[in-house]
Amino acid sequence: MKILALLTSAGINIGVCVLLLSLYSILRKQPGNVNVYFGRRIAEEHKRLRDAFVLERIVPSPSWILKALQYTEEEILAAAGLDAVVFMRIVIFSIRIFSIAAVVCLCGILPLNYFGQDMEHRKIPSESLDIFTIGNVVERSKWLWVHCVALCIVSCSACVLLYFEYKRAAKMRLIYLTRSAPNPSHFTILVRGIPKSTEESYNDTVTNFFTKYHASSYLSHQIVYKAGKVQKMLTGAKMAFEKFMHIKHTVIEKKSKIGMYRCGLCGCSSNSFQLVRTDFDQNGKKIDISSSDTSIREHEECGAAFVFFKTRYGALVASEILQTWNPMLWVTELAPAPDDVYWSNLWVPYRLLWMRRIATLLLTIVYMFVFLIPVTFVQGLTQLDQLQQRFPFLKGILKNKYVILIVTGYLPSVILQLSLYTVPPMMMLFSTMEGPTSRSGRKKSASWKVLYFTIWNVFFVNVLSGSVISQINALSIPKDIPTQLAKAVPRQATFFITYVLTSGWASLSSEVMQLFGLIWNLIRKYILGREEDPIAVPSFPYHTEVPKLLLFGLLGFTCSILAPLILPFLLIYFFLGYVVYRNQMMNVYCSRYETGGLMWPIVHNTTIFSLVLTQLICLGVFSLKKSPVAAGFTIPLILLTLLFNEYCRKRFYPLFKSFSAQDIINMDREDEQSGRLEEIHEQLHTAYSQFTHDTSVKIHDESSDVEDQASSSCKSNGLGKELSHPTLKGLPTARLQKAVRTVCLVVNLQKKASSV
Amino acid sequence: MKILALLTSAGINIGVCVLLLSLYSILRKQPGNVNVYFGRRIAEEHKRLRDAFVLERIVPSPSWILKALQYTEEEILAAAGLDAVVFMRIVIFSIRIFSIAAVVCLCGILPLNYFGQDMEHRKIPSESLDIFTIGNVVERSKWLWVHCVALCIVSCSACVLLYFEYKRAAKMRLIYLTRSAPNPSHFTILVRGIPKSTEESYNDTVTNFFTKYHASSYLSHQIVYKAGKVQKMLTGAKMAFEKFMHIKHTVIEKKSKIGMYRCGLCGCSSNSFQLVRTDFDQNGKKIDISSSDTSIREHEECGAAFVFFKTRYGALVASEILQTWNPMLWVTELAPAPDDVYWSNLWVPYRLLWMRRIATLLLTIVYMFVFLIPVTFVQGLTQLDQLQQRFPFLKGILKNKYVILIVTGYLPSVILQLSLYTVPPMMMLFSTMEGPTSRSGRKKSASWKVLYFTIWNVFFVNVLSGSVISQINALSIPKDIPTQLAKAVPRQATFFITYVLTSGWASLSSEVMQLFGLIWNLIRKYILGREEDPIAVPSFPYHTEVPKLLLFGLLGFTCSILAPLILPFLLIYFFLGYVVYRNQMMNVYCSRYETGGLMWPIVHNTTIFSLVLTQLICLGVFSLKKSPVAAGFTIPLILLTLLFNEYCRKRFYPLFKSFSAQDIINMDREDEQSGRLEEIHEQLHTAYSQFTHDTSVKIHDESSDVEDQASSSCKSNGLGKELSHPTLKGLPTARLQKAVRTVCLVVNLQKKASSV
Repeated sequence: MKILALLTSAGINIGVCVLLLSLYSILRKQPGNVNVYFGRRIAEEHKRLRDAFVLERIVPSPSWILKALQYTEEEILAAAGLDAVVFMRIVIFSIRIFSIAAVVCLCGILPLNYFGQDMEHRKIPSESLDIFTIGNVVERSKWLWVHCVALCIVSCSACVLLYFEYKRAAKMRLIYLTRSAPNPSHFTILVRGIPKSTEESYNDTVTNFFTKYHASSYLSHQIVYKAGKVQKMLTGAKMAFEKFMHIKHTVIEKKSKIGMYRCGLCGCSSNSFQLVRTDFDQNGKKIDISSSDTSIREHEECGAAFVFFKTRYGALVASEILQTWNPMLWVTELAPAPDDVYWSNLWVPYRLLWMRRIATLLLTIVYMFVFLIPVTFVQGLTQLDQLQQRFPFLKGILKNKYVILIVTGYLPSVILQLSLYTVPPMMMLFSTMEGPTSRSGRKKSASWKVLYFTIWNVFFVNVLSGSVISQINALSIPKDIPTQLAKAVPRQATFFITYVLTSGWASLSSEVMQLFGLIWNLIRKYILGREEDPIAVPSFPYHTEVPKLLLFGLLGFTCSILAPLILPFLLIYFFLGYVVYRNQMMNVYCSRYETGGLMWPIVHNTTIFSLVLTQLICLGVFSLKKSPVAAGFTIPLILLTLLFNEYCRKRFYPLFKSFSAQDIINMDREDEQSGRLEEIHEQLHTAYSQFTHDTSVKIHDESSDVEDQASSSCKSNGLGKELSHPTLKGLPTARLQKAVRTVCLVVNLQKKASSV
Repeated sequence: MKILALLTSAGINIGVCVLLLSLYSILRKQPGNVNVYFGRRIAEEHKRLRDAFVLERIVPSPSWILKALQYTEEEILAAAGLDAVVFMRIVIFSIRIFSIAAVVCLCGILPLNYFGQDMEHRKIPSESLDIFTIGNVVERSKWLWVHCVALCIVSCSACVLLYFEYKRAAKMRLIYLTRSAPNPSHFTILVRGIPKSTEESYNDTVTNFFTKYHASSYLSHQIVYKAGKVQKMLTGAKMAFEKFMHIKHTVIEKKSKIGMYRCGLCGCSSNSFQLVRTDFDQNGKKIDISSSDTSIREHEECGAAFVFFKTRYGALVASEILQTWNPMLWVTELAPAPDDVYWSNLWVPYRLLWMRRIATLLLTIVYMFVFLIPVTFVQGLTQLDQLQQRFPFLKGILKNKYVILIVTGYLPSVILQLSLYTVPPMMMLFSTMEGPTSRSGRKKSASWKVLYFTIWNVFFVNVLSGSVISQINALSIPKDIPTQLAKAVPRQATFFITYVLTSGWASLSSEVMQLFGLIWNLIRKYILGREEDPIAVPSFPYHTEVPKLLLFGLLGFTCSILAPLILPFLLIYFFLGYVVYRNQMMNVYCSRYETGGLMWPIVHNTTIFSLVLTQLICLGVFSLKKSPVAAGFTIPLILLTLLFNEYCRKRFYPLFKSFSAQDIINMDREDEQSGRLEEIHEQLHTAYSQFTHDTSVKIHDESSDVEDQASSSCKSNGLGKELSHPTLKGLPTARLQKAVRTVCLVVNLQKKASSV
């Protein structure tokens, strides 16, 4: 590919980006789209934009960019939670390291590459891109030490930055854990593999076990029930009816207009639930779900339970210690936050989990290899001759110069991009099958899968291009991998640059445009004729965005030394991402649950992997170029990077795996002194009530494949907020709406009957 | 190699074995060797053999074999501890699985291999060994399914046996932990990385921290002191003198003959130490080493401490929970048993440990590759032509037929064997540098290293034979490894059979002969003119014997299907091992510490590795022989074996890593009810007294490279026994003897002065 083709591609993309961003700046000002572009704001702040028509509304303006840049980290933390802040730190880290890399490599390496061989240079626009890669440097060049020094500078800066970012993430996590409102999940453990006994029920078994062995800290527990789909629907409707009756008597008068779709079930304030809750609590302190609701007795108990403890420390200890001499029984772990619990997986017997995990692993690997087919096709596009041979009718089209430029410079990325869209839902499905007990766990597992997948399919398979079989052959010689990569990466640098242009920039534009949301909004409003549903706010898709950023990081590192021309494009991507993601975090997305920055270790490990891979490739290149000095300096660099990683793993990683006794005990003491502990204990049962959550959650799941798109409530850090969010929010699906309609009819009939 | 050469080799080895065993049966009856062959008995049972000369003493007899076979598992458990029983289970497991394999393979596979090709068979003695391997089966043979069925039978039997053995080991470990006498290590944790403070000493820091965060269970603690070598010697002599003064006043009268070398310091009964201990305890309950012994104040405190808890559960919880938000500070783990503590490593700052570990890893890898040199030489011996070219003077010798037979059939193994002798001490040295805090941990780490080493150097390097460089090339193509191994293993089967004959059988004979001990005994008695030292009983070298057994297991599995002729020789080895090890466990060795069967997971994992490797090799062979059906059945077999391993890891492995809350709490309750708890608390300090152990241990370390050879006290399971074993036992070294001599002189002078 020539510089001109690259510029064509860049031009197209810049045009598309500017167009989309301008369109966005207009669309966001339309009151009709306020749900799409300000979901979080509306859900959280209950504000509305003015509806008046002014000229300003149809003039594109960059004001949103300025606004996005003005938010402070505290504001993001308050609005979107720690996960959002950690996510933004990935972008900031990338900007920092690639700025350094850009300065070093563009000033130091690019001229060296360009004048690497004694040759006659053409005009720059018609110069091949390969001239700017390390491929242009002659063997045994005395200037290769510059590349080596640049590699050292980039590696060291990356490690230093990573260290401070890890430290910062750990500190933020600590502050998040200690300063946030009391979280019921800290007092609760999830017990699985409760042994079945013919003499007593699971309920009694749990009571006996924990009063015997954790008497001092055990408070109470709640068994998880096995519930079939039909039974779940029935119970859900029943519960909804009961709650509705409460609400009718307590709240309904306060509201003025309650339509069929806004009947207090879907849009009422949190006060009503406080009332419901206290109503439930009046039955006494030790209410079990079995005593408070007879309908639940119909469900079968399963071998899992939430066990509540008096102190956080008690729960922590019980979660970390092996309980009995059979490690498959009484398996304990700290419970996920109430909103984070993935109820549908809790019934899965613990002894089957490891099999599910292995089955999923195999499925994922198979899927990864099946995916090679579109990738191979993409590779075929760069070799136009072959394509013309296979599809003779293309010959006419492919004679046009501009068509060739577009096909080689643009189409491969687009095809790859479209195929990649199928990956996150598939991986989410696999992760669900794996049997995680929390939504965040599922998302984290999906993140890993998507990450492995993208790195394998976008980076390795493209780099070691050719037919599928020759790729496998190339990969099966580990010793030769550095050499193979060293040959292939500079050659493939062109593809990666266009990939950044198309996939990177375009994905950010489509992210900010929210095309899917926009279209859905239009369909709902003008075709289905429904009202706005301000509560259906999507949550941020970390499992697709984090791997995307990390992939671009990998491309940046590996290409920085070998083909530094990628860096300006990458920097633009990250700058744009910085603006876009901040804007989206503050305006669009809403997080239902909080992992407390658990994604940072993934980011750290992947970055280290990218660094080591870069160093290995450079080692290969230096060997190919016969520069023993440069290669010699690279080997200790690799070892030092691995050492640094080992240190970070020792120093920071345990903080992301568990809580420390010191912090937990201090928190317990504070609560005890302030007398809050009693209050928390009372709220634990309601927080982990299976059927309230279960119905709402289940219905969300059915309404859309990616359940998070339909998640309804806003971020809830502490108990107070958690309790304001059960059951009855967010009814976007037809089925529950039907159920509610039935209930409303019944209520009306009852009302009439009583008034008569 | 031909059958005749194999028989020559077998003949030589059988002869050597019979000779050595007969010699042993004579030597063991000589009173002069009683220390060598009955070390444990004498140390434990204080018995003596009759000194009278009878004819029986010079007639070889097999009575010891019968005796060895008669011991029950309970007797071995009582005499040599759980580790010995678990070790014997390895032998029993091997006998069982290879008996099954022998029946299946010798009856099913051997005839098939022999008649695998249409060829004229010579007389069996002059038949080449290759005729009996799978190499003789023609391609696309319709009989290959027999090999596949045999593989399935062997794999399934191995898995079933492994499952029951793992279960048994876990159960034995549980019984050992719950039924043994109260162990101070259960009440104690080792804390490292205590933060340095300018305001308070480590002592105060520890007190403050644990009274603040573990107030309910914290009892007291003991700081570890940093002690230089010179200071250690001085303190040791001082302590020895003080203790000696005690002993002089309390015990010396009871003993009749106390010579210069048996002055109560090296051979007194345990009563004296009970007295010393109660003397120490009189100072009050809260005695710190600093208050009880002013000399220790001179030592510098270091950032490590033993912290004692009121209950086992308290200690378990404190050891498993992350203490503070900095995981490099307040690092806790359950303390090793008092006798097991490796004091010399306790001062190593925790933050340096990971670096040490990595450095050791690198060193081990380097050593493994350096070792290739003798292995290559061994391989050269099998190619006599090359050898004759390089060393022309050998030409004359190598013309003799018998010399050739010996050189090809015997010499390679001997050379390899001799080089292998250097490995355990080196690995022990590396493991010491790694910084483990317990002797058992060091031995376990050395076991792993020796195991990796042997498998790599004996199996892989020999299999993928040829020059060093071609080996590395062969290994660097992972996809081809099954094929490479499939080609090489049958070819190398001859070598492995001779390896079993020479290395296996000979090592057992030399084990039972205790050549080193015998020679040292003679030198000491007749050249140095010293008395017997009944207390210097060696402990069993698990770190060399376990890898040896596992290596033979690996050879057995990999060769069983491909070259079943190895099986009878291997079975003889294991039967002989069964007799010899039982005899040695009961008579010779004495264990200072007990890991509670921690070696079983190593055994299990290695056996699974061997199985999967076998299956991979068979897969390669079946592919080479173009039998898609057999290859197709092997793939699910590999997956099932891996699944089985995963299940065992989930089901049993946690039991070997930690204690369960249920058992620990039950033990605590029993002790509390019986009132023993107070008693245990009082003994904790004395058990973990640094300088009593330190001096004796340090001096042992200096007396011999492999410290365990010089370990002095006998197995101690519980507190009562532990306490009877401090400081003053086992003085085999010249240096301490010199010190004692000085002390004796001083005492004599004092005595004279006081009598004057």
